[in-house]
Amino acid sequence: MPVHTSSIEFSTPGNSEILDITRDVQQKLSETRLREGLVTVFVPGSTGGVITLEYEPGLVRDLKEAFERIAPQGRPYHHDRTWNDGNGHSHVRASLVGPSLSVPFRDGRLILGTWQQIAFVDFDSRPRRRVLIIQVMGE
Amino acid sequence: MPVHTSSIEFSTPGNSEILDITRDVQQKLSETRLREGLVTVFVPGSTGGVITLEYEPGLVRDLKEAFERIAPQGRPYHHDRTWNDGNGHSHVRASLVGPSLSVPFRDGRLILGTWQQIAFVDFDSRPRRRVLIIQVMGE
Amino acid sequence: MPVHTSSIEFSTPGNSEILDITRDVQQKLSETRLREGLVTVFVPGSTGGVITLEYEPGLVRDLKEAFERIAPQGRPYHHDRTWNDGNGHSHVRASLVGPSLSVPFRDGRLILGTWQQIAFVDFDSRPRRRVLIIQVMGE
Repeated sequence: MPVHTSSIEFSTPGNSEILDITRDVQQKLSETRLREGLVTVFVPGSTGGVITLEYEPGLVRDLKEAFERIAPQGRPYHHDRTWNDGNGHSHVRASLVGPSLSVPFRDGRLILGTWQQIAFVDFDSRPRRRVLIIQVMGE
Repeated sequence: MPVHTSSIEFSTPGNSEILDITRDVQQKLSETRLREGLVTVFVPGSTGGVITLEYEPGLVRDLKEAFERIAPQGRPYHHDRTWNDGNGHSHVRASLVGPSLSVPFRDGRLILGTWQQIAFVDFDSRPRRRVLIIQVMGE
Repeated sequence: MPVHTSSIEFSTPGNSEILDITRDVQQKLSETRLREGLVTVFVPGSTGGVITLEYEPGLVRDLKEAFERIAPQGRPYHHDRTWNDGNGHSHVRASLVGPSLSVPFRDGRLILGTWQQIAFVDFDSRPRRRVLIIQVMGE
């Protein structure tokens, strides 16, 4: 069983922007020509997360509001006193959502629901250049 | 190292019902006759999640109450204005809890704690027929 | 592709203590001499979780405060009425954070961000002896 580790790269505006990366992940999977196995999407960084959602504008807004309830941007964070970079809320959100997602595939296709997309959430408080790891294991 | 991808299917009442699926996952694992490796449980859909918990009625109620605090059913959701299907809270809860769980196994058994069960949470606001993916990789 | 399943063991004070285990996970990975693949860190128990974070004292405090907002220690839990062990909040936090983390590796090294560490969170309300499973699959 081979393993293929690659990456995708893109720019984001930050501020809990939610980006649909389903097509990019599927493309990396297709390039391996593997038929059945597991794809892991991983954020090497402490202010980003990976989720699945029905990617439509209403739900995207609902999720941003939920992140704001879970770790509000306005309240004081001890992290901000350490570094003075004002992204304490970004770190808390990222640690709670998590940097890793594992999705099975079969017949060379990600096994996702019809209304289910894979998304990267950039919790940082400023625009960022991002690199995500896409690892494919299978046969 | 072989990979086996199968599924389990069941009906649920929805409304954040929490179903213990430990026995079903172990059975799918046992059918592969593999001894050591990783099982991935995946929900192909955007209104369900997979967790582990001590499956006892008190904690099941506590978790339902926690889901209600995280994304209350009564408040307005932008998603509901998009589709008018009244399950905005279901989607937000599902995206936060996550659709994927990876559990190692050894000697053909899931490595779980004595008081730890695997559960599917159906966040949708109506009864559903559900299919979960059970993928086993190992040797 | 071989699979190696081992464990690390340590004592914790509980009470949502956050322990940096990055070095221990990397050491277990290095012992396998595998070059490329996936490491799964798993908590066999229902009152612990695995996260990644920038491990610095300010953020550690912020995360503990976030756990307290998500499932406060003071409020009544149905679980406590079942067992009378006063750790209902521990279970709710652990089920929401999750017991499993998958991290890709390449060239024998975990692919983590510069400011990203792997941590175990002991949500239980008392000191515990803990065993975590470290499973490495790859080539």
